[in-house]
Amino acid sequence: MNSKALPHSIPGRVYFVGAGPGDPGLLTLRGAQFLAEADVVRYDELLDRRLLDLASPAAEKIGVGHRGGDGRRSLEQIFELLTTHARAGERVVRLKGGDPYVFGRGGEEALTVGEAGIPFEVVSGVSAASGVLAYAGIPLTHRNKAALAVLVTGHEDPTKEQPSVNWGDLAKLDATLVIFMGNRRLADIADALIAGGRDADTPTAVIEWGTWPNQRTVIDSLRTIAGEVKARGVQSPALIVVGEVVSLRAQLSWFEAKPLFGRRVLITRSREQSGSLQLLLESEGAAVTGLPVLDIQPPDDWTAVDAAISELGRYDWIVFTSPNSVDYLFLRLKHYALDSRALGGIAVSSVGQAPA
Amino acid sequence: MNSKALPHSIPGRVYFVGAGPGDPGLLTLRGAQFLAEADVVRYDELLDRRLLDLASPAAEKIGVGHRGGDGRRSLEQIFELLTTHARAGERVVRLKGGDPYVFGRGGEEALTVGEAGIPFEVVSGVSAASGVLAYAGIPLTHRNKAALAVLVTGHEDPTKEQPSVNWGDLAKLDATLVIFMGNRRLADIADALIAGGRDADTPTAVIEWGTWPNQRTVIDSLRTIAGEVKARGVQSPALIVVGEVVSLRAQLSWFEAKPLFGRRVLITRSREQSGSLQLLLESEGAAVTGLPVLDIQPPDDWTAVDAAISELGRYDWIVFTSPNSVDYLFLRLKHYALDSRALGGIAVSSVGQAPA
Repeated sequence: MNSKALPHSIPGRVYFVGAGPGDPGLLTLRGAQFLAEADVVRYDELLDRRLLDLASPAAEKIGVGHRGGDGRRSLEQIFELLTTHARAGERVVRLKGGDPYVFGRGGEEALTVGEAGIPFEVVSGVSAASGVLAYAGIPLTHRNKAALAVLVTGHEDPTKEQPSVNWGDLAKLDATLVIFMGNRRLADIADALIAGGRDADTPTAVIEWGTWPNQRTVIDSLRTIAGEVKARGVQSPALIVVGEVVSLRAQLSWFEAKPLFGRRVLITRSREQSGSLQLLLESEGAAVTGLPVLDIQPPDDWTAVDAAISELGRYDWIVFTSPNSVDYLFLRLKHYALDSRALGGIAVSSVGQAPA
Repeated sequence: MNSKALPHSIPGRVYFVGAGPGDPGLLTLRGAQFLAEADVVRYDELLDRRLLDLASPAAEKIGVGHRGGDGRRSLEQIFELLTTHARAGERVVRLKGGDPYVFGRGGEEALTVGEAGIPFEVVSGVSAASGVLAYAGIPLTHRNKAALAVLVTGHEDPTKEQPSVNWGDLAKLDATLVIFMGNRRLADIADALIAGGRDADTPTAVIEWGTWPNQRTVIDSLRTIAGEVKARGVQSPALIVVGEVVSLRAQLSWFEAKPLFGRRVLITRSREQSGSLQLLLESEGAAVTGLPVLDIQPPDDWTAVDAAISELGRYDWIVFTSPNSVDYLFLRLKHYALDSRALGGIAVSSVGQAPA
């Protein structure tokens, strides 16, 4: 139990916090507050790791699998992970992708916690149905194009005998359909919708890694989307959107249209010095990772540097902000028996003349 | 154009920011960042005013009506309010309730801005379909109770000849129905759903002022909900939820169950001194307004004090944190020819012995 725990008179609590669909900027203020105050964090593994940086370094952080993933833990296991610390008076944040109560088993987890007599709160998050669509340039509803929206899971086999989702009924609605976890069954779902009467020419989008720097959007008709998605190798996480609103993307795409969209940039820096550079790069669409190697001494803790070195291939640019930062990065590369060849394929730039 | 404007080489932008359903803690980090950096804010009037405090005091802030409200401006008027400043290179935040792309005309506004060649971004928000339900203790989806959810507007007359929403079709779905802006037509909507085949015993909730300190939830069957809501005088904003998930509220209500739920507390203080008290009160459910009357001098700017005085009747408690704060509040009450009787009905407490 760390020093920030509440007074003993206040029992531990479990906070179910929606992390949003990916972009860490879509976390709520309340969620960030509870994360910062948490003694213990239990997180879906399909989350941007920058979210965990908002928690105290002293907080115990354990990943508990993610929706639909193979590493998914049982409800009983999650219950143990949530309640043990809460019973001891600690603040436990259960950080879940999207919104906890939209296809996230959050209701089930909250029921078990509540039945155990442990107080809990829910901090809603931006659902993929809001965030992923907006970042793909698709409004969920729109005057004269969609007066209603349906959110549905697609992980169930639509050809089974008594499906819980009747696609034929959904096909008859003049609605935007947002299908979660349906990528593997897209061909069957599209067939079922067309068989149920939905126009085969209905524009359809599949958005892979929505709101992340590697977001990719595939657009096609309902008739041909499954083949296109397969041909382009779209993987999970992916969200499917069926409806006339998809056609608005031609005019409303803004995230993928940014000049630095999809670029990953590593800045060696102290936060104070490169803050404005980072904000400027991010505002133009880059995914920026700040790396604290710019003190006059080498850093006490190499964890962040090591993590970045292990993933060097993911970066498009490295921005060095001082000669020291160059020295220290190479010092650490040498520690791993690496040299400048590890930076092959990455554009290297510098701020000012000295580091070049 | 204030001093924080971006360099002239970067054009102005319009940021469509979702404010969430009410609780200011449900604003996103990105939304708060853009608000803080905004030169100009155009906001839905149905928002917690504390959100506007996140913007710079120098930013020009204009309310532009709210969804379904009578003071609603035309799309042309909003367009002018958004684009004039953006063309001059300023950062314009369009702060909208809930999520901009869920029944908020956000798509229409973004289209007009984009067609004018002005760059824009969308910062998704927590939709009422997530936030209001969670604060009422109702998961949107739940295993074995709701495999799908429908979001729909209820402002259209369901008995008109060619409605854009076919309630009979929706009645046949085994879904959670979330009906926005449907309070005035609740009786007709319930009748249409029952006529279409939905079980008249389906649990139904109407949540007034969801996520606000004055949230109120009325639960009844689909058959009788309209009469109950009318009898209890439920007003807009109100969200309607139809489905088996409503029954989970008995176990999952947490917000209305807090010991200080619905209490409004005014703290005279400096932010540094009363921060932990405020957090503690808020964590127990109180809606806390901090009032900066606790400097050794009276405040330079009485705006916040005056706003609180004008709404004294809304508060349940006032917490004084020093003798000075008592003196200065009474000084200002006197300025308005008021005295201690203005505090009638409000519990007054103090921190430490001195102010009492």
